Amino acid sequence: MEIFLKNSAWSKLGSYLKDTQILGSIQSTLYWDQNTVMPKNGSSWRGEQLTYLAKILHARNSSDEFLNLINLAKTELNESSDCLNEENSSKKKNIELLNKEFDRQRKLDPKLVANLAKAKSQGYESWQNAKRNSDFKIFLPYFEELIILRREEANQLSDKLSPWETLAQPYEPDINKDWLFNIFNPLKESIPSMLEEIKEIDKKKWDIDSSAQQVLCNKLLDNFGRNEDLVAIAESPHPFSITLGPKDYRITTRVVKGEPFSSFLATAHEWGHSIYEQGLPNETHQWFAWPLGQATSMAVHESQSLFWENRIVKSKAFSRSFFQYFLQSGCPLKNYEELWKSMNIIKPGLNRVEADELSYGMHILIRTELEIELIEGNLKAKDLPFEWNKKYKELLGIEPCNDVEGCLQDVHWSEGAFGYFPSYLIGHLISAQLTHQLEKDIGLIDQLIDNNDYQTIINWLKKNVHCHGRSLNAMELVKKISGNELSSKFFLDYLKHKIDQLN
Amino acid sequence: MEIFLKNSAWSKLGSYLKDTQILGSIQSTLYWDQNTVMPKNGSSWRGEQLTYLAKILHARNSSDEFLNLINLAKTELNESSDCLNEENSSKKKNIELLNKEFDRQRKLDPKLVANLAKAKSQGYESWQNAKRNSDFKIFLPYFEELIILRREEANQLSDKLSPWETLAQPYEPDINKDWLFNIFNPLKESIPSMLEEIKEIDKKKWDIDSSAQQVLCNKLLDNFGRNEDLVAIAESPHPFSITLGPKDYRITTRVVKGEPFSSFLATAHEWGHSIYEQGLPNETHQWFAWPLGQATSMAVHESQSLFWENRIVKSKAFSRSFFQYFLQSGCPLKNYEELWKSMNIIKPGLNRVEADELSYGMHILIRTELEIELIEGNLKAKDLPFEWNKKYKELLGIEPCNDVEGCLQDVHWSEGAFGYFPSYLIGHLISAQLTHQLEKDIGLIDQLIDNNDYQTIINWLKKNVHCHGRSLNAMELVKKISGNELSSKFFLDYLKHKIDQLN
Repeated sequence: MEIFLKNSAWSKLGSYLKDTQILGSIQSTLYWDQNTVMPKNGSSWRGEQLTYLAKILHARNSSDEFLNLINLAKTELNESSDCLNEENSSKKKNIELLNKEFDRQRKLDPKLVANLAKAKSQGYESWQNAKRNSDFKIFLPYFEELIILRREEANQLSDKLSPWETLAQPYEPDINKDWLFNIFNPLKESIPSMLEEIKEIDKKKWDIDSSAQQVLCNKLLDNFGRNEDLVAIAESPHPFSITLGPKDYRITTRVVKGEPFSSFLATAHEWGHSIYEQGLPNETHQWFAWPLGQATSMAVHESQSLFWENRIVKSKAFSRSFFQYFLQSGCPLKNYEELWKSMNIIKPGLNRVEADELSYGMHILIRTELEIELIEGNLKAKDLPFEWNKKYKELLGIEPCNDVEGCLQDVHWSEGAFGYFPSYLIGHLISAQLTHQLEKDIGLIDQLIDNNDYQTIINWLKKNVHCHGRSLNAMELVKKISGNELSSKFFLDYLKHKIDQLN
Repeated sequence: MEIFLKNSAWSKLGSYLKDTQILGSIQSTLYWDQNTVMPKNGSSWRGEQLTYLAKILHARNSSDEFLNLINLAKTELNESSDCLNEENSSKKKNIELLNKEFDRQRKLDPKLVANLAKAKSQGYESWQNAKRNSDFKIFLPYFEELIILRREEANQLSDKLSPWETLAQPYEPDINKDWLFNIFNPLKESIPSMLEEIKEIDKKKWDIDSSAQQVLCNKLLDNFGRNEDLVAIAESPHPFSITLGPKDYRITTRVVKGEPFSSFLATAHEWGHSIYEQGLPNETHQWFAWPLGQATSMAVHESQSLFWENRIVKSKAFSRSFFQYFLQSGCPLKNYEELWKSMNIIKPGLNRVEADELSYGMHILIRTELEIELIEGNLKAKDLPFEWNKKYKELLGIEPCNDVEGCLQDVHWSEGAFGYFPSYLIGHLISAQLTHQLEKDIGLIDQLIDNNDYQTIINWLKKNVHCHGRSLNAMELVKKISGNELSSKFFLDYLKHKIDQLN
């Protein structure tokens, strides 16, 4: 029971991590404030506050003191009498993850770290500028620099994984390209022809008053069982979910003119992220600060948000149960089937964020293939617009008129974030595979929705998915829950069934 | 021009102060979040974040490094060639103020500091408990401890000022008792008989819908010229104004059921605090961090909020100009005169926060006399309820039924804050004396309001009051602007005139 001994190496490491977590959560609070309420002119000083915190945090995460505390805790753990009990094995996993991150911080040449920070901020700025002017050439030199620097980073970090794989690790631990294409290829083979089967639906133009949308979002969260003492909500330009403390969760949404479902679906999506974080191991403050108390990967995170957005809210049963509230909000649709169809319009477009469930995967495939070629293949940065447009034509049958509609649309690469995109699609696959198991265990989702029984769904998710934190990576988690390796089968089955229903 | 030399002792001191200010403003951001949007269960972790920051801030403000930087800057300044120009005299004042605060921090025995921190938090907790149970005895032992410790603090800090005077310095620099009673006594002599002259007005019961109150508050701020890029607003349990950065100001208000003017008057009040802070010297980030860039005293701060609440919003001209908006909000009053009278009901009550302009002074006088007796006189803590009730009977002709209505109503003493109360009343006096000069300089307020010309008022305040920061204390500021020492004459004249109008 040395975890409770005040002077053990373990508890000293815990105190250190807790202080780091306090600083990190302060940073998150400033981020939340910046995006929900801060007046515009506050941004320059906010930047100074964030830079100051980032400096302290970086120093803490790469200090000799930290390394020493990790090593002492490791020794203490190895000397402990019963090495094989569950508590000790959790501790070992914690140490392993801490070591891995520490190594990452220390392996990098500080000069490279400084150059990267600068290149990221210049990249983001020039990308915004390029977007405003719809001119990829403005962004190009900074984009090239970012690619060079991140290749160098991959080089300094690893000799086992390929450069792109190395860069993808922080988002998706243990990911590799073979595994990835093994699960992505069936999608690439099936989805384009499935898209052709879709009967086009007339998209009627209508809208819901902004305050009525707020009422709907609140009603949704109430139904899902939000605890107001635990979860606060606000509006922000881009919806997000963030955790500010072990018992302090925040969700934002936004109202988009002419898109009556936008704020509603975003609320469901962010709820999914938040309820995952709420279910992470957090019996004590300590857990919040240790690696095992954190989310395991971006894909798992995304699987949870997509589950609530697509499997719950976009289901027929849900439209049936919520149609009355849409009517009250002034929605002009005649019955719940119309509501359901309006929420499920499938039509390939150029924009990833606005994509439907079916074409979404193609947007991700295109980006994944392109970024691998950019980082470790033969694709030159200057040829990106041409290749981008070519792939859209091939896979979705449409072509951007300009780079704003095309390769300049996403923020990720402008900040040098390579390796992030696949998580979105893996999230879809995980969601489908877990939902399959969930329905086996607790019954059909439609029935649970009919009974307004979201608590049973949440309990299942908490018990099977959320509670593991980082003790299992995404692949291990899916295997443990479903008994099978992650595959695209369940997602494709789900899509086929949905198309049949819609047609 | 050594202020611009990067390696001068002056600029090193500036960098140090800026980092301190960054941390302080982060603390303020957490406070804002806590009071406006944080979910209830977040409070324990928020407490940990705030404790962590307080620890770092205290260390910075009492460190050898800081002392050394102050001394080096002082030496550099003394060695500078032209000691008498304006820039150098500002610098000298800055150093003087830094030295004073540093001395205060260092003179205190760290043991006493720790004991005080504990006693304050216990005091606050037991006060809440005592209030809930309407039982002063629950609070008494903690209150006694706080008095003993703060006496000891005064003892360690000063040998020139009396103990109460020493404790009052952080709120009201250079205050002393003789000066204070010299300006307060005429109020004590006149107000009780003035209260007897008041004709009682029937207070009709009516209310405004909470969202309509929000509209009114926004309209008010728009009229006053709020810049939305600079000032954000929100709701909180207790209205406050706070500055989070050199260009980031926040205001809160609250809606009180059955009190249709509460949120409106609070908005005007907090606007006054905020516009003062917005007018402080802030040409560069540096100023924000230096003492001269800060508000000079609580009384001056309060004079600014009271000016907007009482001199502007409670004026007849304002009711005339805003009656249309009150009508639109569903207010049942018939004309602007009724509106004006409803905002200016004068009737002695037991509660300070809800008091009218006339009786307010008596609430403060009672508290000021009592706390001086508690700290340096013969009043024993256990006798406070009796003395409190006696004074209310004497000065306001009414008596509390219990201690919740009486000596337990305010938070200040529960946290050991002695010396704060007089600032509220001095604020009324300053507001009256400055308004007298303002009208001499730019014409009658009623006329400016009729012309919706708030900008001329703001410009006068900025130029004459706000821009001085801490270069002048409250008394010096009033003397400079009005040509006379601060006196109660202008406030009493104003009150007499108002009563005549109302009767």
